[in-house]
Amino acid sequence: MKEVSGGVCAPKGFKAGGIWCGIKASSKKRDLSLIFSEKCCNAAAVFTTNSVKAASVLVSQEHIAGGKLHAIISNSGNANACTGDAGLLAARKMAALIANEFALSEKHVAVASTGVIGVPFPIAAVENSIEALANSLSGDEAGHSAALEAIMTTDTRKKDISVEIEIDGLPVRIGGMTKGSGMIHPNMATMLCFLTCDIEMPLDLLQSSLRQAVKKSFNRLTVDGDTSTNDTVIIMANGASGASVLSENSTAYSIFAEALESVCISLTKKMARDGEGAAKLLTVNVNGAADESAAETMAKAVASSSLVKTACFGADANWGRILCAMGYSGADFNPAETSVSFISEGEEIIVCKNGHALPFSEEKAKELLSREEINISINAGKGKGSASVWGCDLSYDYVKINGDYRS
Amino acid sequence: MKEVSGGVCAPKGFKAGGIWCGIKASSKKRDLSLIFSEKCCNAAAVFTTNSVKAASVLVSQEHIAGGKLHAIISNSGNANACTGDAGLLAARKMAALIANEFALSEKHVAVASTGVIGVPFPIAAVENSIEALANSLSGDEAGHSAALEAIMTTDTRKKDISVEIEIDGLPVRIGGMTKGSGMIHPNMATMLCFLTCDIEMPLDLLQSSLRQAVKKSFNRLTVDGDTSTNDTVIIMANGASGASVLSENSTAYSIFAEALESVCISLTKKMARDGEGAAKLLTVNVNGAADESAAETMAKAVASSSLVKTACFGADANWGRILCAMGYSGADFNPAETSVSFISEGEEIIVCKNGHALPFSEEKAKELLSREEINISINAGKGKGSASVWGCDLSYDYVKINGDYRS
Repeated sequence: MKEVSGGVCAPKGFKAGGIWCGIKASSKKRDLSLIFSEKCCNAAAVFTTNSVKAASVLVSQEHIAGGKLHAIISNSGNANACTGDAGLLAARKMAALIANEFALSEKHVAVASTGVIGVPFPIAAVENSIEALANSLSGDEAGHSAALEAIMTTDTRKKDISVEIEIDGLPVRIGGMTKGSGMIHPNMATMLCFLTCDIEMPLDLLQSSLRQAVKKSFNRLTVDGDTSTNDTVIIMANGASGASVLSENSTAYSIFAEALESVCISLTKKMARDGEGAAKLLTVNVNGAADESAAETMAKAVASSSLVKTACFGADANWGRILCAMGYSGADFNPAETSVSFISEGEEIIVCKNGHALPFSEEKAKELLSREEINISINAGKGKGSASVWGCDLSYDYVKINGDYRS
Repeated sequence: MKEVSGGVCAPKGFKAGGIWCGIKASSKKRDLSLIFSEKCCNAAAVFTTNSVKAASVLVSQEHIAGGKLHAIISNSGNANACTGDAGLLAARKMAALIANEFALSEKHVAVASTGVIGVPFPIAAVENSIEALANSLSGDEAGHSAALEAIMTTDTRKKDISVEIEIDGLPVRIGGMTKGSGMIHPNMATMLCFLTCDIEMPLDLLQSSLRQAVKKSFNRLTVDGDTSTNDTVIIMANGASGASVLSENSTAYSIFAEALESVCISLTKKMARDGEGAAKLLTVNVNGAADESAAETMAKAVASSSLVKTACFGADANWGRILCAMGYSGADFNPAETSVSFISEGEEIIVCKNGHALPFSEEKAKELLSREEINISINAGKGKGSASVWGCDLSYDYVKINGDYRS
């Protein structure tokens, strides 16, 4: 697997574009995005588990039920959530506008939104700009980049990747873009993620490979514990590469699934590092748990703990908070056999061995914890289960960003 | 019921005291506390649900199993958690030192600790000061106040109360003190709470009245989602008032249980208001839920949400985050019938009615949300269940306090 350029436009047969239509009234940043496949694709998706779902999620769930997509229209600046019947009509209208513009079935258009909740959706702004949006499409890096900009909210960096693998001697590409830096928690986030691929693949395999990849990546990301109303991950596979995956037991499926998981983990780490106000990427690795599920539960508790997150922000090796979080996680483990270390750039400081404090240099620990990537490595002394979870520190800027997000 | 002065010394037959013994090495603030009853009491307690329990919790659980206490010794500055066998020996030693000083059974002494986790416990400091601690006892407000100071960590205010009720024509008093402002979450917190009462009461009734009061008060408090290793609530009842409660169906029990719940709720609100870095007391009232448990689940999700908490800090009426938190709480409710309002000092601003945004003055909302006590009132449009949960805003100071707590 190698990285290539192009983002969602890297796979054959995909175009993308993005414009400003007026939803982000004051900033005038791009706010309307389109990803388009030249031919109708097999498509699969995963949505938020929040019982309060945005209108766009409800409409996309309905449309994706048929397993086919031609385009994804999305906007930033307004979540179209808690907007009642008018919001639902607006989401349907967004799909219909694209369908009309390209002579597609509106069932083949997915809709996604991100932004403030509870504000009436300005559908007229979308309607007035739909032709401009269609004209913005291009099959190169610029198209991808404009589409990505148009879904960003408090994101400070672009989060994308594209890779190439080889299946049956043919080059196959997967491209992805994602947004999300607040309201992010395991089991999805205020995140949108759009993935494109030029492989040919039966619908059930596409769906299961996406589910598995999301489970190991986005569902192991936490920024602030809030699961949003709008989370959406969609993959479209158009078969344009000529390569195909036929069964779950094939080598081709293994290669594809591994690449997709790797793409999703890469995007997950980019989101964690760009968590609202975050200065640092935290990776929590738990080994020695009773099983994978227990490892994941403990790793999530540690990565979600406000006290662990503020300690990382302050470069304070306060490992007692780590054991405390493991303790209230509900997972079974052995405190008396637990070891904890902090790792960064190949250096390791062991702070707790078999449940006891180890003497360590506070100065050295402070220096290590001041770096941009910190790995909290835990052995739970119980079994062979392991899992990694990604998160970030909790900083003054998180409070600043969220203390007055709407204004 | 009327408020009286005296704290834990308000009920007859109790003394208290507090000194500095050297555990808080640099600040030289009081760090060792004693509450003492002239006669052996019936006693009940509730401890942390964290599977990583401080040595002091393990020892107190063992001692309280007999249902009798004569004294509670506690310290701040060191949690005596994750300190292994040496920690356990130190906790036993604390009880033994008091038992020896007053010629009691060590089984009648409870031990509690709060402070940094994972640092070896300096038992010599306690040993050297045990006589001074005994000599500090007094039966007045000053004794109470010194004992309370000695259990405070990042607390910025004293949190105590004492009340008088009348049972069978006799005055009965309940006194309480509590500490805790970080690592606070439903199902206990890094909080210590010591309650005294001069009523005579069978052990099983004392235990059930404490459980019930804690369920409705401390277990509905959240500051940062971290459940600590050290949480302890202890009540001692010595019978010195001459009044007694004989059965659960008596009027006397009702009067006592109501007063105890009221005392615990008062202490809970004082802790919420003094949450680490908190500028505001948030009360989340959920009505119209399917049942009380669903109401509590939703209220806790709202009060725990970092996004709701930062919005309150920023005086931003971002009610979409409230519906979002209800949505991921897992409780069943009806978003389309949900209403939300902000209330302070008798004024109400309705921001959402039956799931839809209501127009409101942003200026007026900003002013109301800038006050020190904010009530988020929610009707879930589903049934008759209701519950109140207390919390606080999330501020820059929370990050500051916890970014470098150990230093």
